[in-house]
Amino acid sequence: MEPVGLTLEQKASLLSGRDFWHTEAIEAAGIPSIMLSDGPHGLRRQDDQADNLGVHDSVSATCFPPSVAVGSSWDPEVAARIGAAIGREARAAGVSVVLGPGVNIKRSPLCGRNFEYYSEDPLLSGVLASAYVRAMQAEGAGASVKHFAANNQETDRMRVSAEVDERTLREIYFPAFERVVSEAHPATVMCSYNRVNGVYAAQNRRLLTDVLRDEWGFEGAVVSDWGAVNDRVAALASGLDLEMPGTGGSGDAEIVAAVRSGELDEAVVDRSVRRVLALTGRALPPSGDVDPDEQHRVAKEVAADCAVLLKNDRDTLPLTTRSAVAVIGEFAANPRFQGGGSSHVNPTRVDTALDAIRELGESVTYARGLADNAIEIAREADVAVVFAGLGEKDESEGFDRDTIDLPAAQVELLKAVAAASRRTVVVLSHGGVVSLEGWHDDVDAILDGWLLGQAGGSALADLLFGVTNPSGHLAESIPLRLQDNPSYLNFPGESGHVRYGEGVMVGYRYYETAEVAVRYPFGHGLSYTTFEAGELTVTATGDDSAAVAVTVTNTGSRTGKHVVQVYVATNAAPVRSPARELRAFAKISLEPGETRRVELTLDRRAFAWYDIELSRWVVSPGDYTVQIGRSAAQIVAEAPVTLAGDVIIPVLSIDSTVQQWFGHPIVGPELGKLLAGQSNRVDSSVDWMRMVASMPMRQFAKLMAYRGVELPTDALPRLIELSKG
Amino acid sequence: MEPVGLTLEQKASLLSGRDFWHTEAIEAAGIPSIMLSDGPHGLRRQDDQADNLGVHDSVSATCFPPSVAVGSSWDPEVAARIGAAIGREARAAGVSVVLGPGVNIKRSPLCGRNFEYYSEDPLLSGVLASAYVRAMQAEGAGASVKHFAANNQETDRMRVSAEVDERTLREIYFPAFERVVSEAHPATVMCSYNRVNGVYAAQNRRLLTDVLRDEWGFEGAVVSDWGAVNDRVAALASGLDLEMPGTGGSGDAEIVAAVRSGELDEAVVDRSVRRVLALTGRALPPSGDVDPDEQHRVAKEVAADCAVLLKNDRDTLPLTTRSAVAVIGEFAANPRFQGGGSSHVNPTRVDTALDAIRELGESVTYARGLADNAIEIAREADVAVVFAGLGEKDESEGFDRDTIDLPAAQVELLKAVAAASRRTVVVLSHGGVVSLEGWHDDVDAILDGWLLGQAGGSALADLLFGVTNPSGHLAESIPLRLQDNPSYLNFPGESGHVRYGEGVMVGYRYYETAEVAVRYPFGHGLSYTTFEAGELTVTATGDDSAAVAVTVTNTGSRTGKHVVQVYVATNAAPVRSPARELRAFAKISLEPGETRRVELTLDRRAFAWYDIELSRWVVSPGDYTVQIGRSAAQIVAEAPVTLAGDVIIPVLSIDSTVQQWFGHPIVGPELGKLLAGQSNRVDSSVDWMRMVASMPMRQFAKLMAYRGVELPTDALPRLIELSKG
Repeated sequence: MEPVGLTLEQKASLLSGRDFWHTEAIEAAGIPSIMLSDGPHGLRRQDDQADNLGVHDSVSATCFPPSVAVGSSWDPEVAARIGAAIGREARAAGVSVVLGPGVNIKRSPLCGRNFEYYSEDPLLSGVLASAYVRAMQAEGAGASVKHFAANNQETDRMRVSAEVDERTLREIYFPAFERVVSEAHPATVMCSYNRVNGVYAAQNRRLLTDVLRDEWGFEGAVVSDWGAVNDRVAALASGLDLEMPGTGGSGDAEIVAAVRSGELDEAVVDRSVRRVLALTGRALPPSGDVDPDEQHRVAKEVAADCAVLLKNDRDTLPLTTRSAVAVIGEFAANPRFQGGGSSHVNPTRVDTALDAIRELGESVTYARGLADNAIEIAREADVAVVFAGLGEKDESEGFDRDTIDLPAAQVELLKAVAAASRRTVVVLSHGGVVSLEGWHDDVDAILDGWLLGQAGGSALADLLFGVTNPSGHLAESIPLRLQDNPSYLNFPGESGHVRYGEGVMVGYRYYETAEVAVRYPFGHGLSYTTFEAGELTVTATGDDSAAVAVTVTNTGSRTGKHVVQVYVATNAAPVRSPARELRAFAKISLEPGETRRVELTLDRRAFAWYDIELSRWVVSPGDYTVQIGRSAAQIVAEAPVTLAGDVIIPVLSIDSTVQQWFGHPIVGPELGKLLAGQSNRVDSSVDWMRMVASMPMRQFAKLMAYRGVELPTDALPRLIELSKG
Repeated sequence: MEPVGLTLEQKASLLSGRDFWHTEAIEAAGIPSIMLSDGPHGLRRQDDQADNLGVHDSVSATCFPPSVAVGSSWDPEVAARIGAAIGREARAAGVSVVLGPGVNIKRSPLCGRNFEYYSEDPLLSGVLASAYVRAMQAEGAGASVKHFAANNQETDRMRVSAEVDERTLREIYFPAFERVVSEAHPATVMCSYNRVNGVYAAQNRRLLTDVLRDEWGFEGAVVSDWGAVNDRVAALASGLDLEMPGTGGSGDAEIVAAVRSGELDEAVVDRSVRRVLALTGRALPPSGDVDPDEQHRVAKEVAADCAVLLKNDRDTLPLTTRSAVAVIGEFAANPRFQGGGSSHVNPTRVDTALDAIRELGESVTYARGLADNAIEIAREADVAVVFAGLGEKDESEGFDRDTIDLPAAQVELLKAVAAASRRTVVVLSHGGVVSLEGWHDDVDAILDGWLLGQAGGSALADLLFGVTNPSGHLAESIPLRLQDNPSYLNFPGESGHVRYGEGVMVGYRYYETAEVAVRYPFGHGLSYTTFEAGELTVTATGDDSAAVAVTVTNTGSRTGKHVVQVYVATNAAPVRSPARELRAFAKISLEPGETRRVELTLDRRAFAWYDIELSRWVVSPGDYTVQIGRSAAQIVAEAPVTLAGDVIIPVLSIDSTVQQWFGHPIVGPELGKLLAGQSNRVDSSVDWMRMVASMPMRQFAKLMAYRGVELPTDALPRLIELSKG
């Protein structure tokens, strides 16, 4: 829709909210107001304008598992079911845009908003988010992929400058956004609060225009995070279309004044108005009835796919119905199932694990904790199941944690119960990684639920009793110590800056590269059945891609879901590559004894690195190893593949090194000929050549002159031309 | 001397060399040519123009212990004796400027030129270099402090951009330069080849003018590293005075053309000419006779103070003259005693350890290695002394290592000898840190000589037999694994950039902060006697300084030298501080049973951090712990001191956070009054306040308006003015 017939003032008014949650309408022109509401794991629709940040006052909606759990599902189908279900609720509630999903990378386990993000890995994040967005938008609601970009902490989030080098942005922090934008075409992208390399994301032309639109082809509207706009005109000029919330007209006036003064081209206003009109124009009227029971059922089913069985010694799990079970811990009765902040959903109902366990087990006792009779019931039961984790006050949007330890009282409880009981199972609920040290070896089994949404309680009970079979895998590493995390030195930064000093070595990329032991690696997850990887074949399908096929067998006695994790390892690139990187994955269900041949594709990007000198992705010619892992740390099969890669003949300059000149496929031999008669003055010793190898030709030529080696005056310019091919 | 009466062409000619080693003369104007020669641990005076980088062709001179060893002496007197001795040789040889010392920080153990640098710690580096320069210049030769700045690797050294944040430059990479410049007034400072944050050091105005001259008061001449100038006019304008070596007139012509075209102010030329004339004007005529025997004696005496006794189980050392000693290893007969590259000295003589041991011991056998009868003689002797380390081809200026392992053949030899002999002593010779893993536990004693200069062989023999008592301490950490080093992920960089991702957490600052175990920590070193630290008193001597006194007793039976190491630990600053930092040290000699009270001063800088927002050093008010360490990892006494610090009342802006506004000593209460009647709408919950604490006032005020909280229109501007005091 073209902004024809609108005054400049009218157009400007469309570029910010009417209020906290709605866009501006121009009824005379037939332009409606649409509503945006917080997501991403449920609808937070607020009717009460008086408490716009009072996060607990919203219309009730189904609380699905937050992204931290969805990440652990490793299953785009799980993400899609949640996206679709929330999309239906949004349609029914008249919400046109749901503010999610969040695809920021978990750089540090301390980030307060990690529960809203999927993973420390960009591929896993991108695939899940893409499935979510597609499914949500298929229901007629728009998504808002956020927070673009490099918003990996809460500390000083509205000002801090994330200092990230270009390769790291391209390889770690951008790809999930890139995948969602190019595959799922989200209605909006939400810019983040922070600065990226000194420039606010909201007024960062490189992010919002050069990369997002020109390179990735984004055609939707860019919306600000709520309150992220500092300079309305600069933001608009950089590609920020819609400022939220409304500013009572002050932003509009700034835009109008900038156009009138000639500072801002009115075409820029028109461009953003067109995008906003496209957004409001695609909004559909409220429709559909949502069945809360059906939605709750979906929430429970997906929750079961998310929990990660970290440890299961002596086949302690699943529990049998006849076992005497002592349930211990506050969270069994009052579950922790979502995170704090703008994503906080007012749930339609809440399942408790305790109720569900009582339905499944024949002999169940319960105690809240130590002050209660926890030790006594633990001693008397066959197995104690302790619910532990982090409370709502321990982690939230808005601030970062400063420890990954469980509260001391919980550790004390865990150890006391473990000492008293015959067998101990720990069920964890928390948004960010918690350390398992100090008690891990004392317990028999650990089921990590992360945050499972409103049906998490009953889902956990089903998993404990084997009604369902755990199939989650870690989407982030669980370190032995906070200090081992590669961001440790540089989180959350200081003096307004946070240096991404670890570069691309985020999460398992670091642990595997620097050979730092972790408690449980990225990708780890147990099942009640067992799987074996069989024959692996890897075949190059071109200069820069390959096909992978691997045979997987369910060698146990239960039906279960298995995640095929495909990593690529290489030293082919001239830059430092992580020891291995996840490049493809698939989750499959297998009956006992069933064997399946799983085929996956490794496209160009699976082998590419981002060359900052050429400003493009490059596949280096050379050898690659394709690995099948039970986790990032445990490789069970691998096969080599050699790729022709990209043919790049470097263009030489006077600043290229001696090594580059002599090693150039065209120029090197020519240079050799020119120096043929004088070589005794050049390579007086091997040591000397090693010393000058990295010397630029500019200095080398001068040094040669000192040694009496003469080149024709035009030789170097001629050879530089020659290198251009 | 003023450049009066010189033509522009003449003036320009003075700003680059006449040839490889000399400045330009203008005889008619009475301007002499002076000679510069490589240092820093001996004179490398070249007469042969035909082989200017053929590093082995130079007039013979005394080879003193390279800086890697001097660093381990922890003794400014050692540095001073070397500086004076080289100064005498320079005077005698007619060399006006000696190109040293190098004070770059050992960021990675892999740096090929680490043998030319002192330490991973800036205080230790600066104190030693300062003593060296003062002593050398007192003899009439000029020094050249190098390589300024952030030149911490050889890989791509002529182009790579060191990406270092300002606080890290100020706290780690600058202080040694700053100390030498301000305390010792070196004749010249040599700029490095590399770029610093994108700008070549040779044309980096911030480095060469703003920091070096305007802040530190440097009044000498800035000389380029040989071949470091890329753009002669830009370099001159930025503060680079003298380009070396000469360019055959091309640089001069560029300067003249730039002045003629108006691009360059002739006053800039005059300024640099004055500095070069001051340099040539202070040059003294050749004088003095140098006694090679006396110089050699100095070289031997200082070498004894540098070697570090790392391990000495079962009192294996010192050897007794009657012990049957099996000497094993090539380096015993052909010592490795200096590094490769421009600092390579053609020694006047070379002591071998084997000869010296044969003089001291009554029963000495020798074998070169395994292929020889090493195992046989080891089995028959009371003790085997194995000489191991790195060869000249393993490390050098011009390239970095890619491993810290000893050559595999040497590890094999060490283990075989240790298995065969009753006792095994290892003597190490090497420029960069080597790993001790794989054999450390198999041997009884390790004497680490690093590189000890031409008299190192006899100095080592004296130490082995107890003629002298070891007193060296590590000036750099010996890690367990290369991967443990904090620069591991970011060394030597890629694509023309090296990110100093570890920031200020270099060496022990990292190991102690992240609690990463090392084999031997910074500061470690044993003696044949023992020392105990007694009463420690720490007294504030003002708002930002303190006096330290500690009692030290020689509790053993030999005279020995002890290093008092004073560290400061604090969390007072709002930036991340290392667990502890070396802030003062003193080396003292004590007779058996002798007790001495050692007094040291901790000045303002011992407590200061560099605030990038204020662009100044700040001492934060608060608690500090002064620690006495046997090493950076082993604290034997500590005492608290509370400092008033600097009073800084922050000036608020609209971008200051809610926390900063409400916490401001003047504005906070005023703001509270304004909101008094409306507070029920502000602090609806503790969680909410925690979420908004880091919100800038700009966004907070808008949000408040949504909640119905009104401030008078002029309130914020008025309060901002109020914060300015």
